[in-house]
Amino acid sequence: MSLIVQKFGGSSVANAERVFHVADIVTKTYAKGNSVVVVVSAQGDTTDDLIAKAKEINAEASRREMDMLLSAGEQISAALLAMAIEKLGFPVVSLLGWQAGFQTSSAYSKARIRRVEPSRIRKELDKKNIVVVTGFQGVNRYGDMTTLGRGGSDTSAVAIAVAMHADLCQIYTDVEGVYTADPRKVKNTRKLDVISYDEMLELASLGAQVLNNRSVELAKKYGVELEVLSSMSRRPGTIVKEASKMEGMLISGVAKDEDVARVSIIGVPDRPGLAFKIFSKLSAKNINVDIILQSVGRNGTKDISFTVSRDNMKETIGLLNPYVELIGATKVLYDENVAKVSIVGAGIESHPGTAARMFEALYESNINIQMISTSEIKISVLINRADADRAVEVIHNKFFGQPAEEA
Amino acid sequence: MSLIVQKFGGSSVANAERVFHVADIVTKTYAKGNSVVVVVSAQGDTTDDLIAKAKEINAEASRREMDMLLSAGEQISAALLAMAIEKLGFPVVSLLGWQAGFQTSSAYSKARIRRVEPSRIRKELDKKNIVVVTGFQGVNRYGDMTTLGRGGSDTSAVAIAVAMHADLCQIYTDVEGVYTADPRKVKNTRKLDVISYDEMLELASLGAQVLNNRSVELAKKYGVELEVLSSMSRRPGTIVKEASKMEGMLISGVAKDEDVARVSIIGVPDRPGLAFKIFSKLSAKNINVDIILQSVGRNGTKDISFTVSRDNMKETIGLLNPYVELIGATKVLYDENVAKVSIVGAGIESHPGTAARMFEALYESNINIQMISTSEIKISVLINRADADRAVEVIHNKFFGQPAEEA
Repeated sequence: MSLIVQKFGGSSVANAERVFHVADIVTKTYAKGNSVVVVVSAQGDTTDDLIAKAKEINAEASRREMDMLLSAGEQISAALLAMAIEKLGFPVVSLLGWQAGFQTSSAYSKARIRRVEPSRIRKELDKKNIVVVTGFQGVNRYGDMTTLGRGGSDTSAVAIAVAMHADLCQIYTDVEGVYTADPRKVKNTRKLDVISYDEMLELASLGAQVLNNRSVELAKKYGVELEVLSSMSRRPGTIVKEASKMEGMLISGVAKDEDVARVSIIGVPDRPGLAFKIFSKLSAKNINVDIILQSVGRNGTKDISFTVSRDNMKETIGLLNPYVELIGATKVLYDENVAKVSIVGAGIESHPGTAARMFEALYESNINIQMISTSEIKISVLINRADADRAVEVIHNKFFGQPAEEA
Repeated sequence: MSLIVQKFGGSSVANAERVFHVADIVTKTYAKGNSVVVVVSAQGDTTDDLIAKAKEINAEASRREMDMLLSAGEQISAALLAMAIEKLGFPVVSLLGWQAGFQTSSAYSKARIRRVEPSRIRKELDKKNIVVVTGFQGVNRYGDMTTLGRGGSDTSAVAIAVAMHADLCQIYTDVEGVYTADPRKVKNTRKLDVISYDEMLELASLGAQVLNNRSVELAKKYGVELEVLSSMSRRPGTIVKEASKMEGMLISGVAKDEDVARVSIIGVPDRPGLAFKIFSKLSAKNINVDIILQSVGRNGTKDISFTVSRDNMKETIGLLNPYVELIGATKVLYDENVAKVSIVGAGIESHPGTAARMFEALYESNINIQMISTSEIKISVLINRADADRAVEVIHNKFFGQPAEEA
């Protein structure tokens, strides 16, 4: 008998039929003798509908009231799922975030979970109840409703798994697991049976939006084994766990991130500390800088290029423009027509030829590399956005073989 | 500077425009220097929509989960109203039932308020916030969501007024106050400036659905002055207060109740205690019996007639049928085509001719009286349902004069 946490996203409970489908998965797990805690998101478009209602009234509504509004969404889906489970004849109780012991920071709309105090959940499990918990929400120390931000339900599920020492945390989604590349775009992709936390983190941050990043970080920190699987098929998904516990593949996947823009400061005087000051300025505004490239310019000056997310582009340029004159640089350039393509794999560190194979694939397809960034388990290149899908495909073919129909 | 509780029903906040209309009333009250606590129901059809969603999944869902589901409705309306008040530039905070200190019994779907622990509301008022509280809901001693049943938001408002020692509790509705009869059906009705708690209670229980009965009982118990008024017009409404504090009118209103059925047990043997046993049987099943008439039947037997609400009719017949044989009575008859028409007024007790005037009005219109019931402040008659509207009109004319256009 195991304790299993199962999380279902908004599309999995979008209508009565799907709610029953979820209830079926949950009760089958319970009927096998497991204790089951279910974490559920708001139904389908509920959150968007509520946001639309709010915008109609006040586009600058306080985040506190937005959280009060939005947390009603999971309340509805949790109650409906509990009713479906009742209908199937199983004992069940639904709990709101605050009832389930979710204590968060006060940062409305993007609160962090401070602690899950699981006594109520434990009590209900002891009574042999299936426990349905609202994802995405908690209360701060003032007893006010908070939400964890988009994708927060994954984090809710992992946090319960941590607090309850669950044996497994299953994240049900609309894909069958983690793939070597986006299966909607690339042929011949493979579902991974297993992937390490670090690889998953790199893939998530690189735009393969399967799992919320904070949930993976939390799972990693406490060693909670995750399974990403589809609520539609009944096949095993992808297990996310510690690298030391798995046979490493060379690379696990190829990911594309189009939410990226390149900024270049041209003709920066060659004085120590200038680069540091530039990046401190951005850091102070919570602008994350990713790939950085420093190159020699004319007359002993340097050109400094880096990437930021496209959302931050405008603010970055606005911050840098006055500064450029001050330090005696020439100008600031930017390019939004770029994309980042990356390979991720625990085997990269121990296989020095991996980068060369990746670059070879791009070279063979005449795709120009603008910038490169590497870590122990990741190699990223910045290229023209127009080339991005093709780049993913040729890199994927290089590492995972040609599509069957072309082989 | 006063503390004013204002309650707005679901139709008052049905859409963005109306929400702003309510926000305008609230902020104008606040701007005059008052402390304001607003109690709000779920928007328009939200509750019905949620019930429909539940029914689609499980028509026999537990009451606990129904309360979990339904309490999301006021959460949404309270947040939206707070956003509208923010938009108008006023400080505001919304609170859920449990945050506002509403502790209730555990009777899901019809919980009773045990206590309002108002420290959070007080704290927010001290900070000069307008406080928006969700009506209709609270938590039981297990920390589970409960609802007070339909119309419960009125009770929520009065309970806050009691707990906070408010100076006035305004119940905003879609009529301008309490009328001498239903203004949609009877010509020449008058809005009452003032009415006593007891009269209001009789009127509410008799089918003049202006105020929830429990809210009036609570207001009476703690002497909270209520004002019933329209959120659309800006005119003064009807004040509900203690009879001793007002000049009594002879009668305050004429009401009609069609949710009534007549049951007759024919040929009950004339043995002591049989009537008692019959009514105990019904009482044990929570069936309320209203007008009772005992008449002499044939051969020394009695006929016992009484009224129950139409909802209880079937169950009543089912309970009585086996019993009738047992006690040697002849049979059970019933009639659903009846209605109860009543006059209510603090002056009835001191004016013995009032009943005669009422019966005269019915006699003049050839309306047959089946049963009569009287109390200090009420006279009710049971008549054919087909005559009910006409009966209300002729009684109203008798006491309040002919419609102007016919005079």
